[in-house]
Amino acid sequence: MLGTMHEVQSFKLSVRVPYAHVDQMGVVYYAHYLVYFEMARGELLRKAGMPYGDMEKAGVLLPAVEAHCVYKKPARFDDLLDITISRVEIRGTRVRLDYEVTRGEVMIATGYTDHVCMSPEGRVLRPVPELKKLAELCPSSTLRVSGKPTVTKSAAG
Amino acid sequence: MLGTMHEVQSFKLSVRVPYAHVDQMGVVYYAHYLVYFEMARGELLRKAGMPYGDMEKAGVLLPAVEAHCVYKKPARFDDLLDITISRVEIRGTRVRLDYEVTRGEVMIATGYTDHVCMSPEGRVLRPVPELKKLAELCPSSTLRVSGKPTVTKSAAG
Amino acid sequence: MLGTMHEVQSFKLSVRVPYAHVDQMGVVYYAHYLVYFEMARGELLRKAGMPYGDMEKAGVLLPAVEAHCVYKKPARFDDLLDITISRVEIRGTRVRLDYEVTRGEVMIATGYTDHVCMSPEGRVLRPVPELKKLAELCPSSTLRVSGKPTVTKSAAG
Amino acid sequence: MLGTMHEVQSFKLSVRVPYAHVDQMGVVYYAHYLVYFEMARGELLRKAGMPYGDMEKAGVLLPAVEAHCVYKKPARFDDLLDITISRVEIRGTRVRLDYEVTRGEVMIATGYTDHVCMSPEGRVLRPVPELKKLAELCPSSTLRVSGKPTVTKSAAG
Repeated sequence: MLGTMHEVQSFKLSVRVPYAHVDQMGVVYYAHYLVYFEMARGELLRKAGMPYGDMEKAGVLLPAVEAHCVYKKPARFDDLLDITISRVEIRGTRVRLDYEVTRGEVMIATGYTDHVCMSPEGRVLRPVPELKKLAELCPSSTLRVSGKPTVTKSAAG
Repeated sequence: MLGTMHEVQSFKLSVRVPYAHVDQMGVVYYAHYLVYFEMARGELLRKAGMPYGDMEKAGVLLPAVEAHCVYKKPARFDDLLDITISRVEIRGTRVRLDYEVTRGEVMIATGYTDHVCMSPEGRVLRPVPELKKLAELCPSSTLRVSGKPTVTKSAAG
Repeated sequence: MLGTMHEVQSFKLSVRVPYAHVDQMGVVYYAHYLVYFEMARGELLRKAGMPYGDMEKAGVLLPAVEAHCVYKKPARFDDLLDITISRVEIRGTRVRLDYEVTRGEVMIATGYTDHVCMSPEGRVLRPVPELKKLAELCPSSTLRVSGKPTVTKSAAG
Repeated sequence: MLGTMHEVQSFKLSVRVPYAHVDQMGVVYYAHYLVYFEMARGELLRKAGMPYGDMEKAGVLLPAVEAHCVYKKPARFDDLLDITISRVEIRGTRVRLDYEVTRGEVMIATGYTDHVCMSPEGRVLRPVPELKKLAELCPSSTLRVSGKPTVTKSAAG
């Protein structure tokens, strides 16, 4: 066990866009959204009582095996963006997280990342129980790392 | 017209992985692949006779509206990666580019990015003729920015 | 005038180190500190009532002409770092800002950046009055963007 | 011994500026120069027969303890920059490298980085013999990783 599972229900990951992230079109360069996703992921795991650093120390890495992002509206320098994890789902050895990036009421981007649990030697492991529990808490778009934070068990759950 | 269309057939984009891109798992951090994709894109456009800088000066931006990456094998510090654009396809106002990242014979990652032509004011434009021509040259996975560089018209083309 | 000058006295810029910033030594890669400096700079200007975005819109750019950083202790993934601007000083056309990066009581890094005010065409301008006022407020290491925030006029002031 | 020392005399590190590195002023964001320095450093060590990856495997890390950069002229998207290491100097346990970034004949930036040899446990080591030999080869600004590549022993050497 990596830690005690906490309820994840009311916190927020906001990112102030630094000049470093804005390109000469005056908008956030597209690769940085994957960094924002990672920051939200880290925040989620910490709030859930299993900081990613502790996972690594316990011998469980969580590398990305797939990433996807849809860019809907440009974000700009100094924008305050909210990064929300709207769903965590286990599919076999894969863990998928869905993300939304918003500025106020405006949807800026959506995306997902797929991960596997992996040993330091590179062997794929089954998802750790904590991740399964996290996925059970939010089977259908109700876990929010930011925005309007609520954790409710969905009808389908 | 942004420039004269050149045949794109024998050049190579190789990237030496800097320490800056490697995380504490000892592998290339996942967001940097989108930068490698962009570098190959820039190289492709330049070799095709329409450098992206000239496109922007001519009032045509090419922002990403979608990006996707599948991570197959880890890349490490100092690896020499080849970034190949295997296909350019026009779908309505969208231009999709397919990428492969290889280290020698090893497939490291694949992915695609979708772009639209856009005016500086943010209006979506139809793809410029040069992009259409580029897509005609490589309808099915034969354009190579690196690796084994050939441009052959596919059977399906 | 870019805006009304506010007193800068009690705010804090904390940065949670993302995985993206940590290299395979397990420490924050050295270039990212310059990004942390920029984030603190942006925060300082916003809190002082002259957000950098407004400066740019008013035709005053603030490019860096020199940067310096001393790395004292490593910072690691998930560390919560405080970025403090300890001094703002005008030297002719140059504006120097001094920075401290701390983790709790531990000094992680110090540094400075020099900037000039510049027109969009690249002409060096005299520092805008707001920057002069900011420098007067903190001639000797008392302005704090984070940590123990106080703005006191120094004896030497 | 980490490897056989080769003579370093005729190679070149050129960097094509990607869109990722350019900010909304249309110039290379200041932190990326430290990445360019690192890329030149890596290239120098490899060409000298002691790739940094091998150093790490042999238990010798080379973290930066200080970095400095002077920005003279802006670099822009798609510029082809040459990164030159003009000097390597040992000062006690410190190794200083001097850098020049040029675009054709135009000096874009200069800078230096200081490093120490360190054990994985964080103990400062004396500079490895290979670094000393590298410094002897170029005591006063004659080692060039790019540009006009020559290694000549200076009069002062």
